Amino acid sequence: MTIQYNNVYLKDGYTIAGTYEADGPLREYFDDIYPKDLYFGEKTLEKAEIKMQTDSISKLLNRNKLNDKDINLLISGDLQNQIAASNYTARNFNIPFLGIYNACATLSEGISIASSYLENKNFNNIVISTSSHNMVAEKQFRNPTEYGAYKHKTTTFTATGACSILLTNKKTNIKIESSTIGKIIDKGITDVNHMGAVMAPAAADTIYRHLHNLNRDPNYYDLIVTGDLGVYGKQILIDYMKKVYKLDISKNYNDCGCMLFDIGKQPVYAGASGPVCSALVIFSYIYKEMKKKKLKKVLIVPTGALFSPTLLFQKESIPSISHAIGIEVIK
Amino acid sequence: MTIQYNNVYLKDGYTIAGTYEADGPLREYFDDIYPKDLYFGEKTLEKAEIKMQTDSISKLLNRNKLNDKDINLLISGDLQNQIAASNYTARNFNIPFLGIYNACATLSEGISIASSYLENKNFNNIVISTSSHNMVAEKQFRNPTEYGAYKHKTTTFTATGACSILLTNKKTNIKIESSTIGKIIDKGITDVNHMGAVMAPAAADTIYRHLHNLNRDPNYYDLIVTGDLGVYGKQILIDYMKKVYKLDISKNYNDCGCMLFDIGKQPVYAGASGPVCSALVIFSYIYKEMKKKKLKKVLIVPTGALFSPTLLFQKESIPSISHAIGIEVIK
Repeated sequence: MTIQYNNVYLKDGYTIAGTYEADGPLREYFDDIYPKDLYFGEKTLEKAEIKMQTDSISKLLNRNKLNDKDINLLISGDLQNQIAASNYTARNFNIPFLGIYNACATLSEGISIASSYLENKNFNNIVISTSSHNMVAEKQFRNPTEYGAYKHKTTTFTATGACSILLTNKKTNIKIESSTIGKIIDKGITDVNHMGAVMAPAAADTIYRHLHNLNRDPNYYDLIVTGDLGVYGKQILIDYMKKVYKLDISKNYNDCGCMLFDIGKQPVYAGASGPVCSALVIFSYIYKEMKKKKLKKVLIVPTGALFSPTLLFQKESIPSISHAIGIEVIK
Repeated sequence: MTIQYNNVYLKDGYTIAGTYEADGPLREYFDDIYPKDLYFGEKTLEKAEIKMQTDSISKLLNRNKLNDKDINLLISGDLQNQIAASNYTARNFNIPFLGIYNACATLSEGISIASSYLENKNFNNIVISTSSHNMVAEKQFRNPTEYGAYKHKTTTFTATGACSILLTNKKTNIKIESSTIGKIIDKGITDVNHMGAVMAPAAADTIYRHLHNLNRDPNYYDLIVTGDLGVYGKQILIDYMKKVYKLDISKNYNDCGCMLFDIGKQPVYAGASGPVCSALVIFSYIYKEMKKKKLKKVLIVPTGALFSPTLLFQKESIPSISHAIGIEVIK
């Protein structure tokens, strides 16, 4: 089922990018760029991620002249075990909190959940936040990551940054128009170095169901954008949509993992990944293009590999998920 | 803010308990009791937890003569890193999925999220599921757990089991009446062997806000029940409510961590914990008492310690959270 909303609006989004991310093509679109030293003045890398996420919320509230008490709900998630970055960030605010986990699809999961609280006017203002930190993710998921070790060309590079967005039921020029919640898709892939292949079928299933449920053609959207499939996953999705669903999305489709970095020039292999990858691209460049009305109808489709080192060691394949959110400029 | 619902009903709940849990006072109330061998025919303990959670959903659907396609949404979470038990369980169903994490407050988090989707009639049937497995939790959070090692008397025992509930917007005799989403409370406690003390202030804050927002006296409820504070945390909460909020909850208050086991007789120290602790007590004994109308108004207040081994090693204290859900029998 696909939900359509009449009462959910995007008020603002605040993006903090790491240095490597700022060296990419979107530098001018980020609100903040944090220093190359990935500790940001904290004692540990995990706390550096907490600082980024905390700052992204504080700066979002400040820019909108809002205090904690004006925000009815904070929804956030990240890749740290027990979503620690989000829990320890939420500790810094006096705001009711819901922790969520859908890996790199966390942002769209949060938007869908927030939209239902806003749609029935239970709440007026909801902040959704996410973050990732390259070295925290490498430590946790790929440890030991040996210096000079060989990386596969299909590997993606976990983006460093944080993003917080403000949704409201007070009218703005950009509305959250619809959401389609994803199902778990698992094609039996166990290769952690090819997450694009793992996640493309989940994105395909969700995009198909979203378009089908709303009886829309891919060209209804000015842009359909997935989260972090990377260059190989992006091509797999285009081919898969054509072959399995007879849909050609090639004309108006892109992937945030291919947009965040200057692939080929920057040492990021197949592109960017991490929950903040799609958040940084959507709420910096795409959001600003929508404010300029250069893009009017966008379908964001963040993609998550629900990868658990423990289950992978137990020879299990990687489940993936993807949630689609339709965002539209109002004339 | 506290949300009240007019359109959210409890249809059924299915509980699977481990042997130790079934040796407690609630044995007769569980739908299933799984064997003492905590592997349940699986190769690993993590997969044993996945089997329990999967079975609890399948058996819930079977008992209600429903198929995957009848369920609009599955919401679940657990204690495994990356909520792996829930992700791998959701892989077994063709149902849209949202993964959540609020540790042992996951059940009430799920009920609040599900209720807002149901309240505005986006969806008709939502399943919320959670589980925990004593040995999986010990391995992940307390490794190395040495044989014969000393345990503190304030330690709680992670319950083994799974619970899935079905919420609907079709009228039943029991409604989800209200929900109050918790804020993160952190009093600076770092003792992982005293989670009751960590979580009691979070429960107190949520119970106070719930009663205050709805202008209700504690005695409005036949029972106020927290999740897994244990015997010491339970007393701390009673004293804390009296001292800080001038509220006496002692007459109609209990804690699921004290109800699941026969404390003193069973080797569970201060009582039970884990996301399934409150789920097993609420959706076996309490639910059946409500169906008999022996309990008519119940406030469930599952409590979560958002404990991360990584951040604890970095000398951080433990944030906690608690969400309150009002459940009422309809005349």
